[in-house]
Amino acid sequence: MAVSMFQYTSPVTTLIEELKKIPGIGRKSAQRISFYLLRSDKENAIALANAIIEAREKTFLCSICNNITTQEPCEICSGADRDLGQICVVEEPFNIYSIERTNLYKGMYHVLHGNLSPIKGIGPDELKISGLLKRLEKEVREVIVATSPTTEGNATAHYVSELIKKHNCNVKITRLALGIPIGADIDYVDSVTIAKAIEGRIEL
Amino acid sequence: MAVSMFQYTSPVTTLIEELKKIPGIGRKSAQRISFYLLRSDKENAIALANAIIEAREKTFLCSICNNITTQEPCEICSGADRDLGQICVVEEPFNIYSIERTNLYKGMYHVLHGNLSPIKGIGPDELKISGLLKRLEKEVREVIVATSPTTEGNATAHYVSELIKKHNCNVKITRLALGIPIGADIDYVDSVTIAKAIEGRIEL
Repeated sequence: MAVSMFQYTSPVTTLIEELKKIPGIGRKSAQRISFYLLRSDKENAIALANAIIEAREKTFLCSICNNITTQEPCEICSGADRDLGQICVVEEPFNIYSIERTNLYKGMYHVLHGNLSPIKGIGPDELKISGLLKRLEKEVREVIVATSPTTEGNATAHYVSELIKKHNCNVKITRLALGIPIGADIDYVDSVTIAKAIEGRIEL
Repeated sequence: MAVSMFQYTSPVTTLIEELKKIPGIGRKSAQRISFYLLRSDKENAIALANAIIEAREKTFLCSICNNITTQEPCEICSGADRDLGQICVVEEPFNIYSIERTNLYKGMYHVLHGNLSPIKGIGPDELKISGLLKRLEKEVREVIVATSPTTEGNATAHYVSELIKKHNCNVKITRLALGIPIGADIDYVDSVTIAKAIEGRIEL
């Protein structure tokens, strides 16, 4: 069937094209979001535009842990109540939020900004690892590698732990436990996870 | 489990909150989009912010058909090659795009900006119907009601067609055909659709 040359009116087309650049947002979602922004209260749309500009203007990466911050060093790195002896290595800044929500961990963080991925062309040089090694020269007792238990996250965890071992033998390197998630029905948990849960079983 | 008071640094929190106002975007998506906007090229993020502002500043609804436009009347309403005798009634502006892509329809449009929905509190007064009746006073031969075949779309189609019949008996009122979509496997098509396809069967 012939496709007509019909186009949305130009500012709408531009908005849809800009939204489509966001990973995970396709043509339909971009269209839906655009029309929401055009039809909802004008204040909402302008507030979003200003929030994007402000977030870009005011935030940068913490020079110590690479977290997104508005102050240098970031809130966690400059926190008086944090344990300098533990560093939790995460893939992305928002992983910090997930861990902080548990209210259990009081150590420091180090954000790699990605995972090793030969397919995506992400090698060790693309990750922010070198700063981590420098930090180990201080009073660090333990590095908790909290990358995801995926192929890429596992490769990254392995690489980071080998690098640390070469650099400093005294630091303890741990990784988050693998097992059945709370509330899951074992019938619906994949067998690799169950195998990991059996391997990592704890005495009662 | 206790939830800590940890917050993203304030401009990031604001950005996430503004994104969450978009229907269909929850906390996780808002977070993901925020971090994309913070980490991708600065030009991309600023371009999106400007696109939102520009789309809001430059677009408005066409006074004839209620389509989103930058000119008055809109491109379709002022198009020299369009058939003034047909009006296709659609729910939302982006429905026009879907119909235009077929390159089959050369008539005019009328955007209702919604569907009747007692549950959402959307009654006839919330829809842009009155302008449609005024348009029928001119040389209109046919109104094609192209609302979705959902409960709400059906109710709207019924309401619009009754209103038109009361107002002007001479105009033909049609609705888009219901049936099996192209490429679908009949085994996977629901029985209501198959029933409609049987009812609306065409002679070969």
